Amino acid sequence: MKSLTEYLTFHIPQRMAFKNITQQVADVVSKSGVQEGLVLCNAMHITASVFINDDERGLHEDYKKWLEGLAPFDASTARYQHNRTGEDNADAHMKRQVMGREVVVAVTKGKLDFGPWEQIFYGEFDGNRPKRVLVKVIGE
Amino acid sequence: MKSLTEYLTFHIPQRMAFKNITQQVADVVSKSGVQEGLVLCNAMHITASVFINDDERGLHEDYKKWLEGLAPFDASTARYQHNRTGEDNADAHMKRQVMGREVVVAVTKGKLDFGPWEQIFYGEFDGNRPKRVLVKVIGE
Amino acid sequence: MKSLTEYLTFHIPQRMAFKNITQQVADVVSKSGVQEGLVLCNAMHITASVFINDDERGLHEDYKKWLEGLAPFDASTARYQHNRTGEDNADAHMKRQVMGREVVVAVTKGKLDFGPWEQIFYGEFDGNRPKRVLVKVIGE
Repeated sequence: MKSLTEYLTFHIPQRMAFKNITQQVADVVSKSGVQEGLVLCNAMHITASVFINDDERGLHEDYKKWLEGLAPFDASTARYQHNRTGEDNADAHMKRQVMGREVVVAVTKGKLDFGPWEQIFYGEFDGNRPKRVLVKVIGE
Repeated sequence: MKSLTEYLTFHIPQRMAFKNITQQVADVVSKSGVQEGLVLCNAMHITASVFINDDERGLHEDYKKWLEGLAPFDASTARYQHNRTGEDNADAHMKRQVMGREVVVAVTKGKLDFGPWEQIFYGEFDGNRPKRVLVKVIGE
Repeated sequence: MKSLTEYLTFHIPQRMAFKNITQQVADVVSKSGVQEGLVLCNAMHITASVFINDDERGLHEDYKKWLEGLAPFDASTARYQHNRTGEDNADAHMKRQVMGREVVVAVTKGKLDFGPWEQIFYGEFDGNRPKRVLVKVIGE
């Protein structure tokens, strides 16, 4: 069994934004030499996500508005007890649960085995600082 | 390490519906000959899900109503910018995030290692066209 | 390829609660002898979750309140058809979808490859009975 682990670092200036990282994950898969296997790609921070969806600007705006409706940013301690710790990011911990921590993608014939529109995104919900994403390929 | 990759195609006539695909996934596991490993099962389309829950008709109706409340269908461009692309399915991209893209299931002694009620479902949120699900087994 | 499968049992007295199970998963990884691989950790029951987030008491209270808002407990059959089966836990099937069934974590140099705050939790949404969590490690 072969394996390769790499760590990608992203520094998103906005509080909430989505970045297409498909090519960077594909590059790790190529470098691994794995022909048949799985690749795990996960946020290493708990106010961020890795997810698969469409690379369409309007949809990303829709996601932001929708997530803000489901779990509004509120720095006060009235809505969120977590903010009593001195943080203001309780909402980000909720947004990340809706969008997910990780994806597992099939590697087939040495490539990400994707449907026609699948793209991998890093989702940031409490930005303006560097955060890491883990990519691990296993297989043969 | 052994591996087997298969693609299942589903054509759901309704806009939103859930289909039990456990047996089809179990058949791929059997065919793979893997005794100990993992099976990845994911929607290859970004307005569909694969998830694990209960095969109970009332619960599925509850899911539909609940998801419609969280992310209502609205073909207009007033609520969803994504629909400016000519699509009417922005809601489906949100419903899919709540229900998830994929499941990873343990294969133990050659079988899906499930609790008493776990069943695998294909979740369709923008139906009436054929879509694919990837099943990949790895292990020994 | 090595593999090890273990089953953890939890009996949470509350209806909804979160329990940190990181050490128990780390112990299974150690016992497996796997240096490079993946570990799958999933709830075997469909009204429970395994997820990764912060071990902060205030945040857990926030999660409970937030999930109760998204999918309120209601034992009647007016809101949830599932409760016509004699169950009262339809809400728990929804809360579990938001928080997720499973996590897949990288094993690197024999350890859980985690960011600074990542911790694994068992999430119970219909407690007061024993339930199982599956931990499966594969790799070399």
